[in-house]
Amino acid sequence: MAAGSRREILGGLGASLALAGLGSGRAVGATRKIGYAVVGLGSYATRQIMPNFAGCEHSRLVALVSGTPAKLEQYGEQYGIAKTHRYSYADFDRIRDNPDIDAVYIVLPNSLHAEYSIRAAQAGKHVMCEKPMATSVVECEAMIAACRKAGTKLMIGYRSRFEPYNKLAIELARAGHVGPTRLITAEHGFPIQPGQWRLDKPLSGGGSMMDIGIYSLNAARYLTGEEPVEVSAIESTDRSDPRFRTVEDRITFALRFPSGIEANCISSYSSAHNGYRVIGTEGSIDMEPATPYVGQVMTIRKGGRTEPRTLPAPRKNQFAGQLDHLAECILNGNRPIVAGEEGLADMRVIEAIYRSAAERRHVSLRA
Amino acid sequence: MAAGSRREILGGLGASLALAGLGSGRAVGATRKIGYAVVGLGSYATRQIMPNFAGCEHSRLVALVSGTPAKLEQYGEQYGIAKTHRYSYADFDRIRDNPDIDAVYIVLPNSLHAEYSIRAAQAGKHVMCEKPMATSVVECEAMIAACRKAGTKLMIGYRSRFEPYNKLAIELARAGHVGPTRLITAEHGFPIQPGQWRLDKPLSGGGSMMDIGIYSLNAARYLTGEEPVEVSAIESTDRSDPRFRTVEDRITFALRFPSGIEANCISSYSSAHNGYRVIGTEGSIDMEPATPYVGQVMTIRKGGRTEPRTLPAPRKNQFAGQLDHLAECILNGNRPIVAGEEGLADMRVIEAIYRSAAERRHVSLRA
Repeated sequence: MAAGSRREILGGLGASLALAGLGSGRAVGATRKIGYAVVGLGSYATRQIMPNFAGCEHSRLVALVSGTPAKLEQYGEQYGIAKTHRYSYADFDRIRDNPDIDAVYIVLPNSLHAEYSIRAAQAGKHVMCEKPMATSVVECEAMIAACRKAGTKLMIGYRSRFEPYNKLAIELARAGHVGPTRLITAEHGFPIQPGQWRLDKPLSGGGSMMDIGIYSLNAARYLTGEEPVEVSAIESTDRSDPRFRTVEDRITFALRFPSGIEANCISSYSSAHNGYRVIGTEGSIDMEPATPYVGQVMTIRKGGRTEPRTLPAPRKNQFAGQLDHLAECILNGNRPIVAGEEGLADMRVIEAIYRSAAERRHVSLRA
Repeated sequence: MAAGSRREILGGLGASLALAGLGSGRAVGATRKIGYAVVGLGSYATRQIMPNFAGCEHSRLVALVSGTPAKLEQYGEQYGIAKTHRYSYADFDRIRDNPDIDAVYIVLPNSLHAEYSIRAAQAGKHVMCEKPMATSVVECEAMIAACRKAGTKLMIGYRSRFEPYNKLAIELARAGHVGPTRLITAEHGFPIQPGQWRLDKPLSGGGSMMDIGIYSLNAARYLTGEEPVEVSAIESTDRSDPRFRTVEDRITFALRFPSGIEANCISSYSSAHNGYRVIGTEGSIDMEPATPYVGQVMTIRKGGRTEPRTLPAPRKNQFAGQLDHLAECILNGNRPIVAGEEGLADMRVIEAIYRSAAERRHVSLRA
């Protein structure tokens, strides 16, 4: 997948670019690409993010940050990253002095998101931070404040917002294509393998909810366009399972939104789930799988008919779309559609979910 | 559908019957059929139950009870019920004197279930009562006590327990066909039309939960074979909708079972739902629709494959199976698999669901 990436990323494409914002009077620069430093070279960074700079119009990979010299060497060579643009964590703050780096993409364990996002902002760099944004509301607020103070953008890696089927589902749900939405179900989970930082609470901040359940939560929020006012959650974790010594396994949560929509959601580390359904008064929009890297399937039921809805392959996949969105926002001075406040909104609900499960009561989220 | 019913029901089939219990040493009488009085001639009784005596081996329709003389006349003629076997509610207790009536099938509005079940028991008749069993735990307990005192059987109309796909789903789920069950989702609902007794709380005892959500609850219980220990529910009802002046619209509820299984369930009077899914560590069993009168669809996902599971048409449909089950229990002296205690178990959880939604807290159901 990464073959040819270097030429495509770094080569002079030369030609003028067809730009989303062109007609608005706030065009992006026609030749400049935003330079990203990827911070953390785990599997998501190396397998999903880095290969997809090849499909970007406005983004390029210019620097790497890792605590493992062998990874810096391997990926540095693979992506043609100069030795001067390979950083250890001890060197991290020196990114300030590298004008090729416009933005960082934080792909570290969750508990490090806040620290490195804030240090990046303090180094004058824009920030893309993987979800969950951090491990607490307090951290999210500090990240937003730091980026505001530094005048840098802050965006959270909600890739599904750049994926055509999810974009269509949002449009259809909010337009009442199957009647006004009454209920949403959303399920995400997978049987987790032992031996990962995700199972170590000091690094992850939590279990399935932080890692995969957040997709159910975020979907419920983006499909409604509303913020929940009431949360109830029940956790089920076998603490004798060595995987779950410090983090939760399953957590089911219900959300009530101001319009009356209810969402019934699942998060699991011991069973496979990937889907959501929007149920309106006249039918339903089904997405299963809903948030994989590729292969979304949409089915619409309405008026007694059940039909698949197939979209043409997108010009850019969701990863490239996400990377380029921050780049365009930087170039055009716009606000990301999934700015820090979006990550904060999820984190407020996640904290309420954990509180509801722990205190065995509903938690109100009225402002 | 009812064409030919009379001949089939009342005609002398003559031939000896192949009987389920024959090998057990407690055979049913080879020629006797249990005589039912149907109490309440609404659409469920007249469209679903009464035509299905035609498919029964051990049950026959022998009497009708209704407050509407025109219905007694119409259905009495259609099913060949003698005028002496047609009763008004004022006459109800006279069923005691009719030896043709072995059992009654109570298909009245929910709030009348307890009274008529108890009066039937006091008249010496066995009782089949439609679900929900009643409108409170107290009523359910009184019904059980009355039937116990009278020495009559009490069975609740959980028809899905006699439907082949549901029976298979129970078998597969409990046998761990897709690994030990970790989560269950169950959704039932329909957009209700105004002007029904179901929307009048004094008659119904509650809204969607009593009427249709009970299918989600009962499925979660029969698929696990366990009783929930913790319940959490959130209600969403637009009280300005004329349909929902006295009863709830939507209610989502989560159940935690002793083994750690969680069930995430939906009940709705404003959107269409009919399905459940059993998610194990190795795959899932999907039923959608799960509990229609006809047309169940089962899909099993396991080992990367998604395959439909198709069963041959049953010898008896679920309605005839249900009617004959009580008949066989009467003839053989057995206990129904869905006795009064089953209706009581659902009602205990329904009361906990309502309490959780009203008091905005989790409700413990530990014994």
